Amino acid sequence: MFLEDLVPGQRFAGGPVAVSAEMIKGFAAEYDPQPFHLDEDAAAAHPVFGALAASGWHTAALSMRMVVQAIGHFGWGVVGGGGELLWLKPVRPGDTLRLESEVLEITPSKSRADRGSVMMRNATLNQHGETVQTFTVKLLVPRRPA
Amino acid sequence: MFLEDLVPGQRFAGGPVAVSAEMIKGFAAEYDPQPFHLDEDAAAAHPVFGALAASGWHTAALSMRMVVQAIGHFGWGVVGGGGELLWLKPVRPGDTLRLESEVLEITPSKSRADRGSVMMRNATLNQHGETVQTFTVKLLVPRRPA
Repeated sequence: MFLEDLVPGQRFAGGPVAVSAEMIKGFAAEYDPQPFHLDEDAAAAHPVFGALAASGWHTAALSMRMVVQAIGHFGWGVVGGGGELLWLKPVRPGDTLRLESEVLEITPSKSRADRGSVMMRNATLNQHGETVQTFTVKLLVPRRPA
Repeated sequence: MFLEDLVPGQRFAGGPVAVSAEMIKGFAAEYDPQPFHLDEDAAAAHPVFGALAASGWHTAALSMRMVVQAIGHFGWGVVGGGGELLWLKPVRPGDTLRLESEVLEITPSKSRADRGSVMMRNATLNQHGETVQTFTVKLLVPRRPA
């Protein structure tokens, strides 16, 4: 898929991904070893979480897997330089996540004739339709060869 | 550590973490299965990466491990709602990462007397001193009980 194939408002979907307590604890043990991601009792006693919750980075990583599924066919794959990442609700054991990805803005590069940038909003939702995470990211997308 | 223990400009350090090709491919296989994170030859042929590169989410997850090491002793742990995440340089096999975390701004909550927010800039650097990622995040931190 090239820059010319995309339009603002275009949507892509990914998922579902089911999240278990074992997955939450496994990711946390490796990357975010804090009690409220590792242990039900510690999480229950935490003034903010109140129950076991996934690391935000776990939600982000699982979301990326759905992003690759949804828009991995973009010309150069999913190549982004970052953006605004927001965690809006905790992800709990038993949640099922899905992805809704929307094209916000398309900007051909002024300096490189072969590419442009695409601003996308990747929203991760749970089984209740609540948005648990958004990532608004600028992707590098090739233009269709002349 | 409570809100009262922090001042703008205060710094914390974490790391090092050594990154191998095996780690890069392992994370990518699970969360970001794109050819330039999985295979040296595919990465060499990619117009942007040119060589095997870690998933940005892998860099983010490894950085979080260093964040927990550096500032996990904040009163409620590291509890953030998100922020601006930027990937500035690729992370390559053989890189060694470290973390520099700096307090930018401290804001007591107006509505909840027991807490405040701390804006921090968590920078991830490689062995050449180049910043590969920054995450500017607002953390929830408790106030010292009266």
